[in-house]
Amino acid sequence: MSKSLEEAIAERALAYVTAPPSDPDDVIRFASPTELVDAFAGTVALTFDAEAPNESADSILDAVDLVIRHSVHTSHPRFLNQNFAGPDPVSVVGDWLGAALNTTGATFEAAPVFTLMESAVLHKLGRIAGYVEEGSDPLPTLPPGLFCPGGSTATLYALQLARHRHQPDVATAGANGDRLTMFVSDAGHYAATKSAALLGIGSDAVIKVASDEHGAMLVPALETAVAASRAAGDVPFAVIGTSGTTVTSAFDPLDAIADVCERESLWFHVDGCYGGSALFSPTHRHLLDGVERSDSFVWNLHKMMGMTQQCTALLVRKPEQLAPCFAGKADYLFQPDKLYADYDSGDRTFQCARRVDVLKLWLAWKHHGDIGFANRIDHAVRMADHTRARIAASGGTFHPVAGVFTNVVFCWVPPHLQPIDASVTHLDQLAEDVRAELHALPPRIKSQMQAAGTAMVGFQPVQGMNTFRMLYMNSTVTEADVDAILDRIDAYGTAALAEMGA
Amino acid sequence: MSKSLEEAIAERALAYVTAPPSDPDDVIRFASPTELVDAFAGTVALTFDAEAPNESADSILDAVDLVIRHSVHTSHPRFLNQNFAGPDPVSVVGDWLGAALNTTGATFEAAPVFTLMESAVLHKLGRIAGYVEEGSDPLPTLPPGLFCPGGSTATLYALQLARHRHQPDVATAGANGDRLTMFVSDAGHYAATKSAALLGIGSDAVIKVASDEHGAMLVPALETAVAASRAAGDVPFAVIGTSGTTVTSAFDPLDAIADVCERESLWFHVDGCYGGSALFSPTHRHLLDGVERSDSFVWNLHKMMGMTQQCTALLVRKPEQLAPCFAGKADYLFQPDKLYADYDSGDRTFQCARRVDVLKLWLAWKHHGDIGFANRIDHAVRMADHTRARIAASGGTFHPVAGVFTNVVFCWVPPHLQPIDASVTHLDQLAEDVRAELHALPPRIKSQMQAAGTAMVGFQPVQGMNTFRMLYMNSTVTEADVDAILDRIDAYGTAALAEMGA
Repeated sequence: MSKSLEEAIAERALAYVTAPPSDPDDVIRFASPTELVDAFAGTVALTFDAEAPNESADSILDAVDLVIRHSVHTSHPRFLNQNFAGPDPVSVVGDWLGAALNTTGATFEAAPVFTLMESAVLHKLGRIAGYVEEGSDPLPTLPPGLFCPGGSTATLYALQLARHRHQPDVATAGANGDRLTMFVSDAGHYAATKSAALLGIGSDAVIKVASDEHGAMLVPALETAVAASRAAGDVPFAVIGTSGTTVTSAFDPLDAIADVCERESLWFHVDGCYGGSALFSPTHRHLLDGVERSDSFVWNLHKMMGMTQQCTALLVRKPEQLAPCFAGKADYLFQPDKLYADYDSGDRTFQCARRVDVLKLWLAWKHHGDIGFANRIDHAVRMADHTRARIAASGGTFHPVAGVFTNVVFCWVPPHLQPIDASVTHLDQLAEDVRAELHALPPRIKSQMQAAGTAMVGFQPVQGMNTFRMLYMNSTVTEADVDAILDRIDAYGTAALAEMGA
Repeated sequence: MSKSLEEAIAERALAYVTAPPSDPDDVIRFASPTELVDAFAGTVALTFDAEAPNESADSILDAVDLVIRHSVHTSHPRFLNQNFAGPDPVSVVGDWLGAALNTTGATFEAAPVFTLMESAVLHKLGRIAGYVEEGSDPLPTLPPGLFCPGGSTATLYALQLARHRHQPDVATAGANGDRLTMFVSDAGHYAATKSAALLGIGSDAVIKVASDEHGAMLVPALETAVAASRAAGDVPFAVIGTSGTTVTSAFDPLDAIADVCERESLWFHVDGCYGGSALFSPTHRHLLDGVERSDSFVWNLHKMMGMTQQCTALLVRKPEQLAPCFAGKADYLFQPDKLYADYDSGDRTFQCARRVDVLKLWLAWKHHGDIGFANRIDHAVRMADHTRARIAASGGTFHPVAGVFTNVVFCWVPPHLQPIDASVTHLDQLAEDVRAELHALPPRIKSQMQAAGTAMVGFQPVQGMNTFRMLYMNSTVTEADVDAILDRIDAYGTAALAEMGA
């Protein structure tokens, strides 16, 4: 072999980025765990023996080919399964360059360029969110936020900031025993309960506020819940507004929530992990009206914007709150007598070593410009609108359930149940046997889809029943892809029905 | 330009990996923030205007060249500044392939190959640590641990597991008000206090146990501290033993700590972020004797083993404790009716979307084998031993202070203070004016080093004084590199002295 192993692997990775799998049946080459074990046994075993030998480069390259072959092709335009579809190629190679340089973002000393890029990007994001003024220093030593390893972690940090404002000595003295409560819509992300558990507040302290049929928080219900919590002797301290819920992409009314938070002196955190990117689009940014009144705002650029896993910004209105809340004051690392240490970000966050996720975002943003970022959002919504139109025109083959913005939730309806009566606006209005039949179909349809490899579309319970969700962010999806996926779901549904003996 | 932008960036990244900067004065091309702003202004501005245009590919490539030029070259054999020196090229391109495939490790559905690789690698790591038996299923659906985004996060999870065992309803009900205390040596990592703050336990609850002159915990002091804490009405719940402290790479006596933890019913967590990798070496693995008796063990493969940022394994003795502690039970994601959902790892951890850090480790381990991993450790210790020998033979130019294993902490001593008396075994035995002079030198020497770009060596307070630390993990470091760095420190010291007018 003339190439080095690393060159050969890099060549395969680059070929994947520049010409990703696009055959209509190559969204996934599905294999069971047993089949994967057997396939790898022909190259390099998946498992490790008591003494692991060094394998030949040729065997490892064969294994690399298997890794690629049997991974889910999330860049395929017919992968609509989750909210990380269609990575931006510039982001991918920006990620590569960051990995090659392999430093950590904690200090200017170890990451001079990336420290400044973080400041610049966080300031720009802060301006877009209305946290900082246009015209203020675009390269501040104290930018309005942090980069975090994912949205759940950012939510965790935000809730600790909220608790820290409520009890300024919590970081040193520990929680003072107040029975804290916080509020999130019943369509909000589980990061709220998981964070409450980890913070020692407890997931029972997370009060789920009712939402409308698409999943947007009902603000009168929030007001009632806060009052009830106070009446019970608990101490409300934070509200999470969601911009882009996981299943239906609902947007909570942030301005109305901000009114409540101001009146009740509650920390207002916005979970814009998914939908925060609507701010890039002049057409859709109104969905986040009021975000500028929040205290903290988490925004995953690795979802709609196609950055690779992960690229999470936690914006904070008052960044001077970060160091008192998180500083570890490690004297081996954050010495004031190092050059330009005032730029060091490491003592404003929880993490120590930290991947330089900013580089890929900086490169992609400079490459696409604001206009390119806006186009990505607008294209995604157009694809969702096309899906909604196709469902409406399907003559009853598909029944719309919920979803706004980029998300479409629907049922495939067997011919003998078509069409579901137009008066059915909520699936619990259906008869129990109809519900049972509709509920049983998606897992069977999905299994056929995975086996055929022609698409990946997720299903999950909505209104108590398994339903499909199609969601868009991959800029290479076309209307023809949408049509083809719906056609496949119809075909697999028909086959599943036959299989069930209906 | 015939190549696409992404191909051109990838080409530069690959050239960096296959032929990293190696000129003796190219460890860093140091530039101040102002100089960096000016340099980028000639290509693509670091900052973003109110309307960010899309920049030309040529400009962006010029900016990429600047990014590379002004980043710290952590793969350079004369970068000894921090514990992530010298990434393994196979790890770098493994990281790239993972980024290209851009999925998340939370479910088998989205990451079939990586889910199995995680199981296999965690099982192998668990065998090496003595957590699971050789001969048990090497591909379990419930492997003995997790991958985490860094060592601090893993410590946070481990301490939550510890609290969860103490109070099994903590995740739902919140902390019950017990005044918990935990114990770590005074040379341990700040992740302990930062985690205690975030958990709501409070950093004051972290009791720092005295250590010996190299930083290894004094177990009698631990026993005294636990007893004193109980006597004060507090509730000890966890002890952190450190294997490889940050500054001196000290190894706490794990077996003796395990005795205390068993007797006192305390959770025993081992922070092997740095030194855990000694387990790969038959020669050095004895440093972790007793780790097999711990409850949890965090191990950063992105430190000594040269994986790119980040690659952290949190091993847990009883992995069945993970789900009750962390599960969010998101029904949109973890449906039991999905294929092979019993392999899903996402509901056993805090994170939702998660980068597939396992791939690079799997590839590197298969490529190097156990023997290659052992060699990397043994080489690093040899370089440290060579450094110690050079210091001992320096005739007083360098004064040894502390450090074991891969770490060497020392002072550069100005000629008029040479040699420091051999009876000085702790720097606080020095006269105050001598201390002040020795303390003032490292920042000045470091600044000259950064400006010249000939090396990167960290300094930090040890025994109350700034001292240099050289630490080894990069497999390309040679004895000639060590000698050259020490010579440069001597030269910069002489120059700094002249500059100070001494």
